[in-house]
Amino acid sequence: MSRPGAIAPLSKGATVILGNEPILLTPGPLTTSPATRQAMLRDWGSWDAAFNQMTQSVCADLAAIANGGAEYVCVPLQGSGTFSVEAALGTLVPRQGLVLVPNNGAYCARIVRILQRLGIDYLELPLEDDEPVSAAAIEDAFNQHARITHVAQVHLETSAGLLNPLDEIAAVCKRHGKSLIVDAMSSFGALPIDLSRGGIDALISASGKCLEGVPGMGFVIVRRGVLEASEGRSPSLALDLHDQYVYMRETTQWRFTPPTHVIAALRAALDQFLAEGGRAARGARYAKNCEALVEGMRALGFEPFLKPEVQAPVIVTFHAPRDPAYDFKTFYAAVRDAGYVLYPGKLTKMETFRVGCIGAIDANEMRNAVAAIGRTLAALGVRVR
Amino acid sequence: MSRPGAIAPLSKGATVILGNEPILLTPGPLTTSPATRQAMLRDWGSWDAAFNQMTQSVCADLAAIANGGAEYVCVPLQGSGTFSVEAALGTLVPRQGLVLVPNNGAYCARIVRILQRLGIDYLELPLEDDEPVSAAAIEDAFNQHARITHVAQVHLETSAGLLNPLDEIAAVCKRHGKSLIVDAMSSFGALPIDLSRGGIDALISASGKCLEGVPGMGFVIVRRGVLEASEGRSPSLALDLHDQYVYMRETTQWRFTPPTHVIAALRAALDQFLAEGGRAARGARYAKNCEALVEGMRALGFEPFLKPEVQAPVIVTFHAPRDPAYDFKTFYAAVRDAGYVLYPGKLTKMETFRVGCIGAIDANEMRNAVAAIGRTLAALGVRVR
Repeated sequence: MSRPGAIAPLSKGATVILGNEPILLTPGPLTTSPATRQAMLRDWGSWDAAFNQMTQSVCADLAAIANGGAEYVCVPLQGSGTFSVEAALGTLVPRQGLVLVPNNGAYCARIVRILQRLGIDYLELPLEDDEPVSAAAIEDAFNQHARITHVAQVHLETSAGLLNPLDEIAAVCKRHGKSLIVDAMSSFGALPIDLSRGGIDALISASGKCLEGVPGMGFVIVRRGVLEASEGRSPSLALDLHDQYVYMRETTQWRFTPPTHVIAALRAALDQFLAEGGRAARGARYAKNCEALVEGMRALGFEPFLKPEVQAPVIVTFHAPRDPAYDFKTFYAAVRDAGYVLYPGKLTKMETFRVGCIGAIDANEMRNAVAAIGRTLAALGVRVR
Repeated sequence: MSRPGAIAPLSKGATVILGNEPILLTPGPLTTSPATRQAMLRDWGSWDAAFNQMTQSVCADLAAIANGGAEYVCVPLQGSGTFSVEAALGTLVPRQGLVLVPNNGAYCARIVRILQRLGIDYLELPLEDDEPVSAAAIEDAFNQHARITHVAQVHLETSAGLLNPLDEIAAVCKRHGKSLIVDAMSSFGALPIDLSRGGIDALISASGKCLEGVPGMGFVIVRRGVLEASEGRSPSLALDLHDQYVYMRETTQWRFTPPTHVIAALRAALDQFLAEGGRAARGARYAKNCEALVEGMRALGFEPFLKPEVQAPVIVTFHAPRDPAYDFKTFYAAVRDAGYVLYPGKLTKMETFRVGCIGAIDANEMRNAVAAIGRTLAALGVRVR
């Protein structure tokens, strides 16, 4: 039956770990704490009350982080964050809706691709990679296109690390009675989001970003009334947020096999999040990380791609060195050997690379990372400017 | 921002473990080995070559387990196994297709629900919960309905633990030129499936079943030509198997954030699977587990719901005691306190409960479980017959 000759013995790395693990300076998966990973050393039955209480406590905490009161409910979903984005759009937007998508990066473009697949009309508001959307531009679009029913807004565009002004966007949506769906994938838990101010119908994020859990589940914090009005709308069973919500409400269980270890890790990560001091403390640590990174990289001669006022303290895009001796793959591999995993750039028009400031790391680690980058460039003989 | 008063301090259990963990006698999530769980103690970057080599080795091993040669490719997908079932149906079946669904349980019914959402025509072949489909019945359906293009077949119906005759079904599909899509969720890795015999276009399973990984990803082993002909067909972006395949082929990376720790655990689980002796050895261990379970439970007075010839050695359904003192929830809780997590029944017509025989457990553990069940019934004062 099994063909030993055809099976590659590629098990090294997964089970045998020698020396220090590299620190991930990536925007999720990221470096998690030992306590978070150790929470995965236990198996949980998916029908078991203790496990289902854990799911419920995770969902209650997630909603509370965004100040979602009784009006909001948090629905978890298996898969990556994108699965939750598609579930939210496919469940919450009626097929005759028209969705405005301010587009300043790859994750906004992904929302457009999802809407195309769902057969939902959309209107793109094209922006540069370093240009946040303005509430005025959104209001203009509302005035020109009365048919707009929804806005699908990426809070923090990870492509460049760009922050969009969510409060202003929510205010203009509220004023015009448009439904706002926010992709808060890489901002949730670190940047302030206050659902009690109104204007936001749904907020999407995932386990493995600023909450510092491991990847494997997303979640949607959604206005209960909006969700309850969406029965039978999703063209997908697996991604039907309403069905997931109703089943969980009635049984306390997940509809389909939950990623039990991922949820246990998220519970542990949330305990640490609360012990650290919640959203404000998490955001402050990341801000310090970002400051140490940018300051250190500037000293090496690197220029951040974004202006400081639109730079979120989550991931920073740097212009690549102009030196012809520079090659990203060589640089990446050498920095990895020095203990740090960087992230490639995602801009199409110029050569860049990215460095994340999130995860279970502090400003000292960022200074060490910068020092390692400096040593690596020197060893490679690459001049930054 | 965060509201400490609203956050329930429900962290116990996730991070603090006292005493032995209960053994899961459930069909996934199940009890995994310490080595499998320990593989999750490391964080992996999703862009990193070492991680992507791990994904590739996992996929190569999965295809080899089903004897899929160069004609087949294994595409992994985030989420539970049902996400992969929907992805396979939504990507591989043209919208003008007609799918025959032999239905002898809840997982067959779930396929029907998925097809309804996808707007794909289907024909149900209704069967009893204890009645395997016959190749003759499928052939009759082909003869009566020439429009049938596909068969969606559950190999092992976990609702009762029923085995359907896959080889015969594959042979009749091959003879009639129908495309066969197999949900092998709880059989893959334990029961023989040989793709080289022809007749099967796609085979779906997941990480957390007989491979003894943790839950969080599924996979589809699919005939390359069939997958390559399916470009642009999926109505979903997240569940587009073709897009996932092409992106991974071109970049070696997952399209969207992968469940890195789940994949590392599956790599470790596959190493142990191969060390145990592959599919045949895994199946033989489960057969011994099942035998010990059934023998022990019969001695306590329990009757299995299925006849031995259609009982797969994966999960066994038992008739509940007729004693009015019996209540499943009480029984479940008491057996859990005795160290074993059982599974509720899934039959609508009669009261049953289920006991899984899969996971990192052996026949001695099954004997211990039976003894614990016996002690529990005595303590509860419940007579089986």
